[in-house]
Amino acid sequence: MVAVVGGGQLARMMAPAATALGVHLRVLVESTTSSAAQVVVDAPVGAAADAEAVSALSVGADVLTFEHEHVPFELLDRLAAQGVAVRPDTHALVHAQDKIVMRRRLTELGAPCPRWAELPDIDALVAFLAEHGEAVVKTARGGYDGKGVRVVSSADEVADWFAAAADGGVPLLAEEKVPFTRELAVLVARRPSGEVRTWPVVESVQRDGVCSEVVAPAPDLDPALAARAVDVAVRVAEGLGVTGVLAVELFEVDGDILVNELAMRPHNSGHWTIDGAVTSQFEQHLRAVLDLPLGDTSARARWTVMANVLGSALTDLTDALAAVAEADPAAKVQLYGKDVRPGRKLGHVNVTGDDLDDVRRRATAAAALLRGETPA
Amino acid sequence: MVAVVGGGQLARMMAPAATALGVHLRVLVESTTSSAAQVVVDAPVGAAADAEAVSALSVGADVLTFEHEHVPFELLDRLAAQGVAVRPDTHALVHAQDKIVMRRRLTELGAPCPRWAELPDIDALVAFLAEHGEAVVKTARGGYDGKGVRVVSSADEVADWFAAAADGGVPLLAEEKVPFTRELAVLVARRPSGEVRTWPVVESVQRDGVCSEVVAPAPDLDPALAARAVDVAVRVAEGLGVTGVLAVELFEVDGDILVNELAMRPHNSGHWTIDGAVTSQFEQHLRAVLDLPLGDTSARARWTVMANVLGSALTDLTDALAAVAEADPAAKVQLYGKDVRPGRKLGHVNVTGDDLDDVRRRATAAAALLRGETPA
Repeated sequence: MVAVVGGGQLARMMAPAATALGVHLRVLVESTTSSAAQVVVDAPVGAAADAEAVSALSVGADVLTFEHEHVPFELLDRLAAQGVAVRPDTHALVHAQDKIVMRRRLTELGAPCPRWAELPDIDALVAFLAEHGEAVVKTARGGYDGKGVRVVSSADEVADWFAAAADGGVPLLAEEKVPFTRELAVLVARRPSGEVRTWPVVESVQRDGVCSEVVAPAPDLDPALAARAVDVAVRVAEGLGVTGVLAVELFEVDGDILVNELAMRPHNSGHWTIDGAVTSQFEQHLRAVLDLPLGDTSARARWTVMANVLGSALTDLTDALAAVAEADPAAKVQLYGKDVRPGRKLGHVNVTGDDLDDVRRRATAAAALLRGETPA
Repeated sequence: MVAVVGGGQLARMMAPAATALGVHLRVLVESTTSSAAQVVVDAPVGAAADAEAVSALSVGADVLTFEHEHVPFELLDRLAAQGVAVRPDTHALVHAQDKIVMRRRLTELGAPCPRWAELPDIDALVAFLAEHGEAVVKTARGGYDGKGVRVVSSADEVADWFAAAADGGVPLLAEEKVPFTRELAVLVARRPSGEVRTWPVVESVQRDGVCSEVVAPAPDLDPALAARAVDVAVRVAEGLGVTGVLAVELFEVDGDILVNELAMRPHNSGHWTIDGAVTSQFEQHLRAVLDLPLGDTSARARWTVMANVLGSALTDLTDALAAVAEADPAAKVQLYGKDVRPGRKLGHVNVTGDDLDDVRRRATAAAALLRGETPA
């Protein structure tokens, strides 16, 4: 039995993989209407920060895992000390939770990073700006999808964050604003016995700080650079002792790569694997945390494009789903069962094929229909 | 919302498809430990023959459908009269439930059948045997996987069945024993608005009256015969007014085909579609009964072989699952969450690839591991 903390779409998409493997899935959900609660039979309601709920969740589980990084570490360490297999463990997980810890460790491992600095006080930012002109200031913890990130050219622009940090809040760091040509991502799976597998390197297209499309494999990527990206991702997975799936988000810049972010769980950049790879990231995560031999990560088609469906004014997707089915019988729609809110990730569409332009056009057209846009 | 009668593996495998489409699935299960009950949140317990249970199941459902044909028709007709969309309806379903009704109608439709006769009494069988030497005697209803079928050369061999039939039991029919070269199957989906799609014709390999492997597409099948098989299957789907998925099992004999059996639901001969086709039979069944545009039925690989995992002396599949994962990282295992009983269908394995011999060897080897057999 695999116990999962967090009842969003990532836990939801583990369910079909668990069903296939005959693995019992138990998910700690935020509410009975959570995305995962709709499709997982054993879904106790509780908060990820609730020690009692997480402890109860792990009773009888072969392994405790996560769909997000917001679980108190003292609790996880206590459970681990009691014999619960926590995967990834907190020694690994902290690198996905705390960007300062991550940057320190990546630097030690020799993984390429943007130039960066801890910001113990505002003077540190002033010094960083003096050197780099601009800075991407981040809260060390709690940020995602563009939240907890500000691009500044003056320290005044994050004075509120420094005040909060001085008041016992979240520490800050600065990173150089990388003049990247595009964003890439490498998905790795690693199991306790050490076996590691990677999927093809993908390109992740962002709009307004949120992933809009993922193209697998990344088009026109220099094979040597792809190999370097995979090598870096494997070094990170091994160096951090990750178990389960790790997403390494990268900038491509000047013919090299820099590590942007880490996520130690299935990730949006890997949703293409559901229809585009022999083994999906969700099945692989279950295999990895259960220490089962990992599945084949080969692509099943020359190209797969994943397009995210973000919430719009359209509140009922029923007709839009029919419209997609009508327009593109081969589009693979995955809906997350969430109430519509503008900008919220409601689902995604995968399209596979031999012609990248066609595949990309179809995936984005299907996602547009699910946002209520009528075709041009 | 789709309501399904029957909580076996067919309903279980509808769950991932429903999850992806964001469709609420409600399944009437035999018990809380049924195959589908393990993975479907809304799974009331009740018997398919229980009018109250089926009636309650259909409250609020957009459509009522089935994973088997053993539901009282008076009940379904009553629900239909009350406005419940029953798909397939009883006018279609009766052909999958009653082999005499099926043979009459197929004969009317000009679908190729083995020579056959109703057996109102034992004299009718004596006459049939006088003409054909041998007969496959079948109970009109209730048979599956070799049950309710006897091959006889003397009427005495089914005297007990005639006694039961005369006593108000199930009527009998005789079919000629067809000297077939192999068994084929065509899977069709049809929705109420009339749209029909078929998957490639497959070969179904039987052992001891139970399907052992399915090869998609059927190797070395004459394209004209494949076209004829598809044509017959579509004619049957349309002629019978089927909605949802229909499996047409065929004999290949003397360069032609004969219809053997019909099943109006996802079928074992279509499990290969989960990993081998763009749209699985489970997703397609949901689309069809919801009257959504049907999905692309193209094969995703040159060859897919599905091997059934039948119950053996091995009672715990955990180690065997790990052994399969180790031996073949690309084998796609689907377990049904059932207690092991010898001969029971516990799961299946799909393998896809370009080389049929390799694909077949790998699928059967993986299934053998799950039966506890050690590799040669």
